[in-house]
Amino acid sequence: MDLLQKTIASIGPLDREAMARADERLNSLLKPPGSLGKLEEIARQIAGITGSVINKTDKKAILIMCNDNGVTEEGISSFPADVSFLVADTMLKGLAGVAVLGRHAGADLKVVDLGLFKDVPAPGMINRKIRRGTSNFTKGPAMTRDEAVKAIETGIEIALTAADEGYTLLGTGEVGIGNTTTSSAILYALTGESLDILAGRGAGLTDEGLEHKKAVIRKGVEMNRPDPGDPIDVLAKVGGFDIAALTGCFLGAASRRVPIVIDGFISGTAAVLAVRIKPETKNFMFTSHLSDEPGTRKISDILGLEPMLNMGMRLGEGTGCALAFNIIDASMKIMGEMGTFADIGM
Amino acid sequence: MDLLQKTIASIGPLDREAMARADERLNSLLKPPGSLGKLEEIARQIAGITGSVINKTDKKAILIMCNDNGVTEEGISSFPADVSFLVADTMLKGLAGVAVLGRHAGADLKVVDLGLFKDVPAPGMINRKIRRGTSNFTKGPAMTRDEAVKAIETGIEIALTAADEGYTLLGTGEVGIGNTTTSSAILYALTGESLDILAGRGAGLTDEGLEHKKAVIRKGVEMNRPDPGDPIDVLAKVGGFDIAALTGCFLGAASRRVPIVIDGFISGTAAVLAVRIKPETKNFMFTSHLSDEPGTRKISDILGLEPMLNMGMRLGEGTGCALAFNIIDASMKIMGEMGTFADIGM
Repeated sequence: MDLLQKTIASIGPLDREAMARADERLNSLLKPPGSLGKLEEIARQIAGITGSVINKTDKKAILIMCNDNGVTEEGISSFPADVSFLVADTMLKGLAGVAVLGRHAGADLKVVDLGLFKDVPAPGMINRKIRRGTSNFTKGPAMTRDEAVKAIETGIEIALTAADEGYTLLGTGEVGIGNTTTSSAILYALTGESLDILAGRGAGLTDEGLEHKKAVIRKGVEMNRPDPGDPIDVLAKVGGFDIAALTGCFLGAASRRVPIVIDGFISGTAAVLAVRIKPETKNFMFTSHLSDEPGTRKISDILGLEPMLNMGMRLGEGTGCALAFNIIDASMKIMGEMGTFADIGM
Repeated sequence: MDLLQKTIASIGPLDREAMARADERLNSLLKPPGSLGKLEEIARQIAGITGSVINKTDKKAILIMCNDNGVTEEGISSFPADVSFLVADTMLKGLAGVAVLGRHAGADLKVVDLGLFKDVPAPGMINRKIRRGTSNFTKGPAMTRDEAVKAIETGIEIALTAADEGYTLLGTGEVGIGNTTTSSAILYALTGESLDILAGRGAGLTDEGLEHKKAVIRKGVEMNRPDPGDPIDVLAKVGGFDIAALTGCFLGAASRRVPIVIDGFISGTAAVLAVRIKPETKNFMFTSHLSDEPGTRKISDILGLEPMLNMGMRLGEGTGCALAFNIIDASMKIMGEMGTFADIGM
């Protein structure tokens, strides 16, 4: 709990003075003011994060939190639970979607096991297992409050280590069959919004499967009665270790002033939790794509962040972050390499 | 006219058999079917273009057509006409937005002078000048029909040369103060849609300036009476050499089965013209971003192509293409490098 409190306390505002200097430079570049849209906003925000106008985001990693969810017993996914193990394994072997797109973006993957049922033997797995899977939240809380804090603090530690290693841009990803269910449950508990908006087909549920998923979420939330004013209580009762750790990644990155990118629905849910825990965490967050999972729209609305990419993707893993990394790099180059009106004597 | 007719005749359908094989491979990859959204659609379409399932888009160029517009006399832009010269010059010097983003994407720039008032002395300019600026379309047609065909054929030749040089992915860009006015005029003449939807602020008009721009467009279209069923007539009467040449780029790329990316409002207008001239040209087109210029939404609707990027950009030049190139590359790597269920013994 000490690490969590210390981290929360150290998350601060953006450097407004650096942002003003960034604006000055952006307006001196050879273009109508504001005409590079979000490329300019990204450059401005990163100046506010680092305190420097010119920045590089060359050293990149996607932090991928893995967990199995006890609620998969209820048949809420179109895939069996042991697919989590396979996905994590193929990430480390370079075959998964995020492995390919991470390589394309020049990003390393940090794959962390918080609670997979089975151990992944592939080299590179970071073992921070809390327990072999969370509990089925239709029968009781998914985890204890202590476990939730421990998972958040694990995510914080992963982000702090990445900052120590010199990473200048972080992304978020996850593995965990059933984690669109836990994400929808968290958002339902936090916001009271209709599950028709918050719950989607995940990896490919039928109409019937989707209705069953909503019923399971409703049951879990009604039974555990999470306190909507207490994000850690919500996480503990209907969340997962993956989402808790991602929440910690956002907090940890913010505390070390490293920009961090939201992926899709699950990491977006963690971003909402991090902002509920400490609103200033949002200063350090960047969007990537609008996931095809419908609840992602609600997350954008809550965070007030409009995704840059509209790719109809719903794979998760961190794949959206990998695509966004290239755009953030592009923004850094606009700031660092584009000519100014002064350069051409105007 | 021979080249134009020959080019139109050689634009064919996608290879449905290759697309079926692409689908088969996409569904064998380690992900729920369709979960990589547009990354999958791009890979499928490029398979249909090349006839091969696995493709590379490593050698890339942005074809940038430059022109000055006589209608700038009417004060329809917030920038003076000689800024076109400066923008083209800074592109060749590596300082312009598209130069920075093109470099970032590993793309070459092919900058072509179709009709700048002043000659750009920087090395690398491809001089294919038809005339020093089009005529003011409020006083008569912007160009003759022969000039329009010559500009289209110039664009075709630029695309054919790029295909000969081995480029596997092309983008489109432009330089020309006043070319959001000519683009809006073309779309207004072709579709009859309201100018409140089709005309925008370009590089930064005031409310008053925007109303004046609409009045100028209305005057030009009413006076020249372009035939909405004849895209070349519309181009000649209220278009520009840049837009005509871009129309040729789309046709030329399609005839050689090279994928070509639409940038923003101006190149999108050229894409609409190319599709009106030969509907199958659409098979070879890819979107990039949704430009902040409002008429771009109409172009998306006409073409039935949803942009991948939502960046609030309105610089033009080809900057959106440069960002889209990275995503298309990513799609090629998904197809070529991602593991299959068979790879892991499933």
